[in-house]
Amino acid sequence: MKTFIMDNGIKVFQYGNPVETDAVKGKKIRKDVAEVVKPFFNEENCTIDLNLKKEDVVYGFGGNLGGINKRGRIYESYCTDEPSHTEEKKALYGAHNFFIISGETNCGYFIDYPSRITYDVGFSNLDSLNISISGHDFTLYIIEGEKIETIISNFLKIIGKAYVPPKWGFGYFQSRWGYKNKKEVLEVRNTFVENKIPLEGIYLDLDYMEDFKDFSISNERFDCFKEFVNQLKKEGTYLIPIIDAGVKVEKGYDVYEEGISGDHFCKNKEGNPYTAAVWPGQVHFPDFFKEDTQKWFGEKYKLLTDSGIEGVWNDMNEPAIFYDEQSLDEAIDLATESKGKNLNVFSFFDLKDKFCNLANREEYYRSFYHQVGDELKSNHEVHNLYGHYMTKSASLGLSSLLNDKRFVLISRASSIGTHRYGGIWTGDNCSFWSHLEQNIKNMPSLNMCGFFYTGADTGGFGNDCYGEMLVRWMQFSVFTPLLRNHSAIGCVNQEPYAFGDKIMETSKKLIEARYSLLPFIYSEYMKSVNQYKVMFKPLSFEFSDQLSKQAEDQLFLGNEIMIAPVCKANHEGRFVYLPEKMAEVSFGKDCESLQIKNSGIHYLDYGLEDFKFFLRKNSIVPLVTPSMNVKQLSQEKLKVLAYVESKAEYNLYDDDGVSYQYLQGKSFSTNIKITRNKGDFKVEVSNTNPSIKEIDLTIIDESNNVKLKKIKL
Amino acid sequence: MKTFIMDNGIKVFQYGNPVETDAVKGKKIRKDVAEVVKPFFNEENCTIDLNLKKEDVVYGFGGNLGGINKRGRIYESYCTDEPSHTEEKKALYGAHNFFIISGETNCGYFIDYPSRITYDVGFSNLDSLNISISGHDFTLYIIEGEKIETIISNFLKIIGKAYVPPKWGFGYFQSRWGYKNKKEVLEVRNTFVENKIPLEGIYLDLDYMEDFKDFSISNERFDCFKEFVNQLKKEGTYLIPIIDAGVKVEKGYDVYEEGISGDHFCKNKEGNPYTAAVWPGQVHFPDFFKEDTQKWFGEKYKLLTDSGIEGVWNDMNEPAIFYDEQSLDEAIDLATESKGKNLNVFSFFDLKDKFCNLANREEYYRSFYHQVGDELKSNHEVHNLYGHYMTKSASLGLSSLLNDKRFVLISRASSIGTHRYGGIWTGDNCSFWSHLEQNIKNMPSLNMCGFFYTGADTGGFGNDCYGEMLVRWMQFSVFTPLLRNHSAIGCVNQEPYAFGDKIMETSKKLIEARYSLLPFIYSEYMKSVNQYKVMFKPLSFEFSDQLSKQAEDQLFLGNEIMIAPVCKANHEGRFVYLPEKMAEVSFGKDCESLQIKNSGIHYLDYGLEDFKFFLRKNSIVPLVTPSMNVKQLSQEKLKVLAYVESKAEYNLYDDDGVSYQYLQGKSFSTNIKITRNKGDFKVEVSNTNPSIKEIDLTIIDESNNVKLKKIKL
Repeated sequence: MKTFIMDNGIKVFQYGNPVETDAVKGKKIRKDVAEVVKPFFNEENCTIDLNLKKEDVVYGFGGNLGGINKRGRIYESYCTDEPSHTEEKKALYGAHNFFIISGETNCGYFIDYPSRITYDVGFSNLDSLNISISGHDFTLYIIEGEKIETIISNFLKIIGKAYVPPKWGFGYFQSRWGYKNKKEVLEVRNTFVENKIPLEGIYLDLDYMEDFKDFSISNERFDCFKEFVNQLKKEGTYLIPIIDAGVKVEKGYDVYEEGISGDHFCKNKEGNPYTAAVWPGQVHFPDFFKEDTQKWFGEKYKLLTDSGIEGVWNDMNEPAIFYDEQSLDEAIDLATESKGKNLNVFSFFDLKDKFCNLANREEYYRSFYHQVGDELKSNHEVHNLYGHYMTKSASLGLSSLLNDKRFVLISRASSIGTHRYGGIWTGDNCSFWSHLEQNIKNMPSLNMCGFFYTGADTGGFGNDCYGEMLVRWMQFSVFTPLLRNHSAIGCVNQEPYAFGDKIMETSKKLIEARYSLLPFIYSEYMKSVNQYKVMFKPLSFEFSDQLSKQAEDQLFLGNEIMIAPVCKANHEGRFVYLPEKMAEVSFGKDCESLQIKNSGIHYLDYGLEDFKFFLRKNSIVPLVTPSMNVKQLSQEKLKVLAYVESKAEYNLYDDDGVSYQYLQGKSFSTNIKITRNKGDFKVEVSNTNPSIKEIDLTIIDESNNVKLKKIKL
Repeated sequence: MKTFIMDNGIKVFQYGNPVETDAVKGKKIRKDVAEVVKPFFNEENCTIDLNLKKEDVVYGFGGNLGGINKRGRIYESYCTDEPSHTEEKKALYGAHNFFIISGETNCGYFIDYPSRITYDVGFSNLDSLNISISGHDFTLYIIEGEKIETIISNFLKIIGKAYVPPKWGFGYFQSRWGYKNKKEVLEVRNTFVENKIPLEGIYLDLDYMEDFKDFSISNERFDCFKEFVNQLKKEGTYLIPIIDAGVKVEKGYDVYEEGISGDHFCKNKEGNPYTAAVWPGQVHFPDFFKEDTQKWFGEKYKLLTDSGIEGVWNDMNEPAIFYDEQSLDEAIDLATESKGKNLNVFSFFDLKDKFCNLANREEYYRSFYHQVGDELKSNHEVHNLYGHYMTKSASLGLSSLLNDKRFVLISRASSIGTHRYGGIWTGDNCSFWSHLEQNIKNMPSLNMCGFFYTGADTGGFGNDCYGEMLVRWMQFSVFTPLLRNHSAIGCVNQEPYAFGDKIMETSKKLIEARYSLLPFIYSEYMKSVNQYKVMFKPLSFEFSDQLSKQAEDQLFLGNEIMIAPVCKANHEGRFVYLPEKMAEVSFGKDCESLQIKNSGIHYLDYGLEDFKFFLRKNSIVPLVTPSMNVKQLSQEKLKVLAYVESKAEYNLYDDDGVSYQYLQGKSFSTNIKITRNKGDFKVEVSNTNPSIKEIDLTIIDESNNVKLKKIKL
């Protein structure tokens, strides 16, 4: 075991000879450090037992299922295409091995290891967190700190600065697997336009490709793609096409041929390209672990960028495998042998399971190999990095292809570190009320792992959505940086206009609210990136009482507001817990109303037609007039809501929204300071943002007295 | 269309020539009645559209998924072995076509029809309930009434008096698919005894049978069954074996041979016994629609009753079908043809789905026939009555075999009317928090359909339970008449002692609480049966405010108490809404404490080690000292908790608990009346129950003043 210390005091314990994972960017200095936890090495794996006190809360594990408090479940880090997010599921798409045990003391743990890790968090034993690492070579980071947020900040610093999309990436996006041609995409766009519903872009699922081939465009369904993309972009609607991990095996298909000739595909144990089946039928998987393959694949995005594309989503990159030839053959052979036999229940289920469990078997991941430095490693050994390196490949490719222009990039699979290259969405959820709740619970844990550009498929991907569910979901998701309504073929359409006029009008108001909040959301996003802190946090990061610890359907966004959405059918409101006095903000037709609420438990009236959040004490939230898209968004007149007991200050961050100059500190700031001054408020503004000309303030005090002020800049 | 009127004013509309279903027992009198709703007859089906006002609540649909308020979902009545109760599922095991639309006015609807009906309850259209009946021949009952409870009562009256189990059926039962022999069953029993955990009986799953054969007992694993059953019964533990619907096809097996020679099996269209595969491999299904088959099968239970068995559970009687020969052959043939072909994604999923979707296909139910009166009907046409008639068969059989002794009988499949013959459990749920919530939500709707002897598999059947979940589940399920902890083979064990000493001690206290409450639960059960009223009701049956309408995780039990369990992981309490003042009752080590709470929203501290409920204003709840089983339960000293502002009265029903003499009115009554009298309370008791000798009263008033009183009888 080697030990290191990092700049910010993080202790590093390196066991064996770990694979380089691209997770940590911070510098490690070799130093003797006493072991904080004692791993126990068995023959094949390694276990770590951590004690959990009754009052301890466990935070983290990124995109996994479960609550904000992770106790009471088993989690697995093994990137998996899991189409059914039911309560017992242990692994989803990401491998996010960072967590904090928070109680009398707080301590963060990050296990840097690219294969399977299992966490039994107070499930088998209420009082312990048992970790099982499927090997001996890993690096353990111990992040001590007095405050939870300090621990997170220190962790975020060592894994590096997060990806930033262009400002238009914060708009509203419509998506569906099943917009099958240009005509249907146009219809969607036109329906938004006709009904004056803001729209930033449309995601294109597999439908746009020719035979599911990466970097191909169907001539029949999406002819003149370049003109189509550019015309729509000119009119204010971006298109964001999908790219899958597997490359179709097809003689003459350029990507396949280049992959073969350039030796870019993963090999089986005989040294031939490994074949598995996904959407296109048989595919090879690019070996993204190799730098020249990363580069090669990254450059393929040129086909898209040349057509005017500035955003892409990478999918199926766990990588998902429907079956491989050998396993399908085995299943088929067993079927053939079973013909005419009176199967008993055991032999029948053996046969059925052979077919039903064909997807994503660990044996597949054990049977193909990556070039990792000088070594050949099975995918299983480094499984959780596959999607990571695909995202890196796309990110580097797009960066180079688009020069100094930012792009939208989201991935389904990810690992710690992937946040530097792109965002992620939470995968193939369903139109379930419980998945709306899951969306809320995931935001802080994803943020803790560096993923700020993230969100769930609003309305749910699988199964049928309905109007009430869509509206309730949007009342929450309009706060998430990635805001995408996405649904699967075969399910009902779930565009904002799909459920009648009433739901459409409400949805439109909610999307408008999103654009109204967009400068604030962007500002908070950039602060999270630049200051290494979460954007969404549970109440319990700030308040230690029991109710704050249990409030898993409420979140702070930054330091300013608290969100408390309704997540249940047939409700006209909900219980909400205020750990301190707050102002309830309700969006009305033309203006917002504020109403002070005392700390404690309240019933919040929150109808389907409402949009509400809470403004915290001594806090300020800026709003603008909504527009049809980000390009048209004007900040000339900034509307400011403030709840001030003594003094409040907000610094509205802004930048050009398109370039990387923010990395050199090129940004604008609008600092608004409001101080209580006897019966009135003193407002001080210092502004470097030329697009802001006027500030309209609505200031409320703890006794519901409202003052209106206007400041010309 | 023919119209009728019933004694209690229920309007009956008979369309076409409906199948006799055994649902309604009340007398119909031919009379002209104006149509209340207008069915629309299409070529193949019939639709009914009912308007839903914004404030309307829809109650009913028995054992289906969804909330207490059924809006926002689609439900199907088509009895189905559905192993995964996820949010999108439309049909489970029962067909319970009774519902109430409650708003400004209240109206009940019962559709008496034995094949598929689909209810779109404000899903596709928020403002309407659309019913689609898969045929033209049905009877519609319209039950008008001012109050919800009057409508329910009138409905319960026409469908007939509910089944009553022996009093020991209200004890605590342990179960598991996987207690594989006598030794393991004994170990379970002994572990309960050693740890002094009350236990009434153990359910025996398939494990006890020889090759999954009905009415067989494994000689190897359960030899000397009779001695085993009787010895355990003598020691206070009943055994309750399972019986499945399908009879194994096996030459020489008596039940099979008798079924063939007696012509008892359902036929395919060629007139031969229909063969499908379930647990034993190939089976035939008894045609329970024929009275002589009912009688024949009912008498087969003699094998069990002769061994001392007094309780049975009927399972797989939707009937569940794993596959039929033809469909399996088709799947196998397609597999064989696919060998060596490079399947594209569509042909691959076609093949995979052929195997994965083999179970419970509608085409199976269309391909075998029942003798319904003089007609031959496909199972599909009368599908929802199959489990019903199996339960009837078992019930009549057991009645006759056990003479005047009551028996425990539960079924998985059911229809309206099945409640006269036995109870039901809610089927194969999972160890999911959401399924604990579902358990709560199902109790009132099941009661509305006549099912009082009902409950869910405590701790969850599928997937792994853990200590905290088990305890939280029991904190609720100790109130349900059927209290059974049941789990599936392959999942972790979930007996009360399976999760360490702390969970065991807590579970033990909860089971003791059940026995303490047993006379009250039995009394409330019998009142529901005799007075045709629900035992569990949502707050909204009594209170019309918004919060009462939304309180879907709180229930009144009778008129006396309100239950508000914790249904979430990592919670130390919950929000609870009191529509009026109540007393919080906490069970302590040796005594109960009472604390008055004002109406409104409260945070209820409810730890894992607690047991709590609310006693309503001017209400009384009787308790006894817990015992190890019902036989040992003494009511000599009745403990009474009362919260009295003006006056309270409770009538404790009791009877011999074993015979049917209650049908002749043979019962005991202990009437306790408490009247406020200046600073004191006047207690009047009139008692006909010889087993009660003394009453210890704890009476609290609205100011938390407690008076203790003792009355010798």
